[in-house]
Amino acid sequence: MITLWFWLVPVASVMALGAAYYFFKQMMKESEGTVTMARIAAHVREGALAYLKQQYKVVGIVFAALTGVFAILAYVFHLQNPWVPFAFLTGGFFSALAGFIGMRTATFASARTANAARHSLNAGLRVAFRSGAVMGLVVVGLGLLDVAAWFLVLSWFYPLDDSHNLIVITTTMLTFGMGAAVQSLFARVGGGIFTKAADVGADLVGKTEAGIPEDDARNPATIADNVGDNVGDVAGMGADLYESYVGVILASAALGAAAYVHTGSEVQLQAVLAPMVIGAVGTLLSIIGVFFVRTREGASSKELLAALGRGVNGSAVMIAVTSFFILWAMGLPNFVGLWLALVVGLLIGIVIGRAAEHFTSQAYRPTQRIAEQAKTGPATVIISGLGEGMLSVAIPVLAVVSGISMAFYFGSGYQFSTDGIGLGLYGIGIAAVGMLSTLGITLATDAYGPIADNAGGNAEMAGLPPEVRQRTDALDALGNTTAATGKGFAIGSAALTGIALLASYVEEVKIAIRHVLEKGNAYAFPNGVEVSGDDGIVELGRFDLMDMMDNYEVVLINPKVVVGMFVGAMLAFVFSGLTMKAVGRAAGLMVDEVRRQFREIPGIMTGKADPDYAACVRISTKAAQREMMLPSILAIAAPVVVGLIFGVPGVLGLLAGGGAAGFSLSMFMANSGGAWDNAKKHIEEGHFGGKGSEAHKAAVIGDTVGDPFKDTSGPSLNILVKLMSMEAIVVAGVAVSFSLV
Amino acid sequence: MITLWFWLVPVASVMALGAAYYFFKQMMKESEGTVTMARIAAHVREGALAYLKQQYKVVGIVFAALTGVFAILAYVFHLQNPWVPFAFLTGGFFSALAGFIGMRTATFASARTANAARHSLNAGLRVAFRSGAVMGLVVVGLGLLDVAAWFLVLSWFYPLDDSHNLIVITTTMLTFGMGAAVQSLFARVGGGIFTKAADVGADLVGKTEAGIPEDDARNPATIADNVGDNVGDVAGMGADLYESYVGVILASAALGAAAYVHTGSEVQLQAVLAPMVIGAVGTLLSIIGVFFVRTREGASSKELLAALGRGVNGSAVMIAVTSFFILWAMGLPNFVGLWLALVVGLLIGIVIGRAAEHFTSQAYRPTQRIAEQAKTGPATVIISGLGEGMLSVAIPVLAVVSGISMAFYFGSGYQFSTDGIGLGLYGIGIAAVGMLSTLGITLATDAYGPIADNAGGNAEMAGLPPEVRQRTDALDALGNTTAATGKGFAIGSAALTGIALLASYVEEVKIAIRHVLEKGNAYAFPNGVEVSGDDGIVELGRFDLMDMMDNYEVVLINPKVVVGMFVGAMLAFVFSGLTMKAVGRAAGLMVDEVRRQFREIPGIMTGKADPDYAACVRISTKAAQREMMLPSILAIAAPVVVGLIFGVPGVLGLLAGGGAAGFSLSMFMANSGGAWDNAKKHIEEGHFGGKGSEAHKAAVIGDTVGDPFKDTSGPSLNILVKLMSMEAIVVAGVAVSFSLV
Repeated sequence: MITLWFWLVPVASVMALGAAYYFFKQMMKESEGTVTMARIAAHVREGALAYLKQQYKVVGIVFAALTGVFAILAYVFHLQNPWVPFAFLTGGFFSALAGFIGMRTATFASARTANAARHSLNAGLRVAFRSGAVMGLVVVGLGLLDVAAWFLVLSWFYPLDDSHNLIVITTTMLTFGMGAAVQSLFARVGGGIFTKAADVGADLVGKTEAGIPEDDARNPATIADNVGDNVGDVAGMGADLYESYVGVILASAALGAAAYVHTGSEVQLQAVLAPMVIGAVGTLLSIIGVFFVRTREGASSKELLAALGRGVNGSAVMIAVTSFFILWAMGLPNFVGLWLALVVGLLIGIVIGRAAEHFTSQAYRPTQRIAEQAKTGPATVIISGLGEGMLSVAIPVLAVVSGISMAFYFGSGYQFSTDGIGLGLYGIGIAAVGMLSTLGITLATDAYGPIADNAGGNAEMAGLPPEVRQRTDALDALGNTTAATGKGFAIGSAALTGIALLASYVEEVKIAIRHVLEKGNAYAFPNGVEVSGDDGIVELGRFDLMDMMDNYEVVLINPKVVVGMFVGAMLAFVFSGLTMKAVGRAAGLMVDEVRRQFREIPGIMTGKADPDYAACVRISTKAAQREMMLPSILAIAAPVVVGLIFGVPGVLGLLAGGGAAGFSLSMFMANSGGAWDNAKKHIEEGHFGGKGSEAHKAAVIGDTVGDPFKDTSGPSLNILVKLMSMEAIVVAGVAVSFSLV
Repeated sequence: MITLWFWLVPVASVMALGAAYYFFKQMMKESEGTVTMARIAAHVREGALAYLKQQYKVVGIVFAALTGVFAILAYVFHLQNPWVPFAFLTGGFFSALAGFIGMRTATFASARTANAARHSLNAGLRVAFRSGAVMGLVVVGLGLLDVAAWFLVLSWFYPLDDSHNLIVITTTMLTFGMGAAVQSLFARVGGGIFTKAADVGADLVGKTEAGIPEDDARNPATIADNVGDNVGDVAGMGADLYESYVGVILASAALGAAAYVHTGSEVQLQAVLAPMVIGAVGTLLSIIGVFFVRTREGASSKELLAALGRGVNGSAVMIAVTSFFILWAMGLPNFVGLWLALVVGLLIGIVIGRAAEHFTSQAYRPTQRIAEQAKTGPATVIISGLGEGMLSVAIPVLAVVSGISMAFYFGSGYQFSTDGIGLGLYGIGIAAVGMLSTLGITLATDAYGPIADNAGGNAEMAGLPPEVRQRTDALDALGNTTAATGKGFAIGSAALTGIALLASYVEEVKIAIRHVLEKGNAYAFPNGVEVSGDDGIVELGRFDLMDMMDNYEVVLINPKVVVGMFVGAMLAFVFSGLTMKAVGRAAGLMVDEVRRQFREIPGIMTGKADPDYAACVRISTKAAQREMMLPSILAIAAPVVVGLIFGVPGVLGLLAGGGAAGFSLSMFMANSGGAWDNAKKHIEEGHFGGKGSEAHKAAVIGDTVGDPFKDTSGPSLNILVKLMSMEAIVVAGVAVSFSLV
């Protein structure tokens, strides 16, 4: 029976969506400025829409195929829950919708932000931040909506007073997490390739060869570049964080169902609901936080930053306080421990964010050292950027490992032994939920950066006076600081979710074993593994887990696990290599096209003829569609192929190895890229020769190398890890029933 | 009781050292050429010797400290075998000796090779290859000597007719593997920093700023550059491969002792001896192979390559055939399966070598694609080099994982279940032994490359006619092809050894548990873990292994294991970042010094004044000593720190995560670096504008970035992984007895 607590979730969802609609309407009331500004914004909007249409067509085909496969697995082989194909589809749909709404809002907001910035910095901030809030609130609103709807539907068919049913419900719901992950992988990879191909192409020919400034209207690739910001940084990020958000809530709910399976269905139900309720309350607090962000007219940029900080930190403090009472009121045993775990989660996010800032901001030594190396040329810039980036993974990893240790310790009732493993893992899940609980507002401060960036592009192309560009640049710079924090939350939650999903996978394997045994062993265990347990049915619970792990030979020295781990680590590198090469190839096409236009359309440089912007958008669109397929299919195929060959132990190794290596690799790429970007800015601020010096040229090369690092390969890698985990859970029955060795 | 088979080991050792002495004498009979040539060679020789002296002083202090720690652990806390401190010292000593002899030989051989190349290519090959053979045979000869001596000593104190004693002996012997690993880590890291600091420094100022050719005598850093080749590529590689060779033999012996613990001490003894015997026979076949390598006077470079191939492949085929009879005659059960595992090992090495060649040689598309990207500047060269390098890890990893799966399957008597785990792991060990069995000759073809390179430097500096330089360049190019194969064996064996050591670690943990229980639990299990087993003593054997793994909570979803894995992967990145940054800093000092000399010593450029070569050597020496400490200490500290905090499960995670991530990362760095190097050569051969073009300048930048990748960070990473494993084994008692959680 559903408790009252549950209804907080749909309520928060509706309120978030309502607030998002309100902010959207407010933003739309603003003027788009001059005719030129509106025309440029329309160009960008059309390009972005054209890209998304094309992308959704391709992704739609992939979804149709996968849904078909899942339907066969569910209805022909009975290896899956019958709800899987539907849940998968809704996850993909809502993820796409979150990205779509965020992007539409952003493309409506850029000219309006630029126009507001003509009046004052504060006015610009208000428009940009409120538009970012639309994205943040839509992501969490749709996330909670999907969670609530599926929980209601499934609780109808699987009554909640049976402990096993709660496990079935929560693992089934992970399927829409997988749908969201598949969609967001395509969004991140495709969008990342689009934006960086346009960016690199525009810079190489426009800035370097033709010597015209960034965002100059004479550059044929400049509209594509601005479209890229929207489809990559906005739509890609929206889909990505939708996936992170529901992934965290679902993984924790599944761990709660498993941890409390022996304590009666009432407590178990509360444990399942707790992550959702914390998410709901965090969303309500985020809405309040968004309203906190206001400054007096004529505020300095320090005051602006303080205003953003008040919103973000205020929400975080409020959730830290209220969650204590929520966990207590929900009647969870060991609620103090769980609350401590939640606070640990909030802290990990902050530490990772600060570390990212330290390693990528020109206010600190690492980035300054990279800038200094520009004095001896591009080679030393690259060497030191790679070196600093590799070093930078230390603090985030140490933060995550001490965080999960503490969350496990608190969650399990202050112990580290095997007895508390289920409860401890639930503690890790709660920490991840805590970290993302106020995503509504952290994402708002993250998403307004690209809007400000685009507003700057609009101002440049529309030929607005330089002080407008300065104001949008100031907004953009502010956004970079808050984005470091937001990125920390996203990356940290990915690591925690990955670990939590590893445990959920084991739960799903147990369900699959039980299912196969009940169905009379039809496809079971060709490799001769026997299953122990009372009357042939594997008992679900902590202690059986250990037995089952035994039967599945998942100890670390098992060669199947080792094989999986090596393959997992290798996949992280191969996936990154494929996306890097994709950007390189697509950028090459863009360079050719821009050169062709400069050659064949006379009068571009004198401003007498308009370049063919749409051609560049088409090239980036086509290239992104083509290039995103191979890495994405590789990611989707890997868990199935490894499961079919090496069975459950191989898959566990794959997830663990991919998670451990992928986390460090993505952090390295993100931080190297960010540091190169800001090392260039540091030089442009007048150090080591300033703009136009040899050092600056060397730093520009570093920045270009960093582009695919930080905006394509790095962020996609986080999704790869989570996608593989969720998919492994969804198709667990396959690895259980069929495996070569 | 020692069987007759054993005596093959010292016999092969003596014969290898004798042959090495013979080749050394032969080489020394050659003339060093003109007075200038001899003088230059003497400069390089002195510089290299000065470096090694300094290095051994520093490493000596580290060894004294570690030996002291081991003595305390062994004699005060009784947590270690009393032989550990001594075995540790000899491993370090012999590793250093192998590097030292190889380097001395190389520094004597360079001028002699250059002089011989004045007459003909063939004469040059003979001198260079025979000198390389000295190194190859010294490494395996000293390796077998150390193995044989310690086995004799320990078999005196621990009679071989007790099954448990064989386990104690083999795991104790792993200690000198650790000694070798510590020494070789310092040699690789220190040598790598020295050589790349000198190389990058010489190139940046000499080639780029002053516009003088490589190895020009007017460049103050040119002697340091040549010294670097000797201390990095020769001494470092010798120490590295000494460590790989003994590591492989010792890990397999330990696995043999564990796998056959229940089958009686006679079979078990043969299983322990088999890896040593295969190594011994492989060494004898290598000596024969070295004599195979001879060509008619005036042979073409194709014929030369064929001659080298005859030697290497002939030895490999011979060991593949003879090992069948050896395994049969030694009376090992399942000898056919073990033989198949050995052949698999040989094949993995070849596949990895071929893959490395494919991804780094300008004869193939990947490197050509990187060269083509040079047309659009350095940024695209770097992006595509990083992308291709990341992609290139796929084939080696797939080769290793299918190899270990097959070796396990064959070794365990054609099954994949838990029952055969001990035997299967022994199969993996035998595969690794097979791979390195003919190291004597593969190393000879590897080591002659740097000698030819140095001969080229000598020819250039001594102003010999250009055809001499062309001949040494041809030798060097030949060496690059064979080096790819050699590198494949080194990397593949590192991966297999790492996996084998993971299993040996578990054996040592069991010994530690038994020891602690016998001593009355003095320091045992503060964390409350209980140990099962008959009458309180943990039984040694396959099935107990599983029990113990249970008690140690080493299942993959255990947070302690996950923590270890994340830390292991992170360490691989941090270690690489530290070594990259070290090269950057040291190269910066070198740049300053070379610029200073050009400024302050008039007449250098006109050839009227000699530059101060020794100053540059001193700078590289000092910088290398200083910079090698932090990464090396990090590597040494990690297993102890993780063990003290997270116990045995944490250490297992550390080794597995570090191994999986480290293997991919080192392969990526090695292949990216090699590909950039050859992309530059491809352009220099006349493609995309040829030497001096903008594309060439871009490719030079790629090559410079690749230098620390392929010669410092990449190869050091392999040692890091093995060192951490062996050290974990040596200090297993600490993690067993003390751990925080």
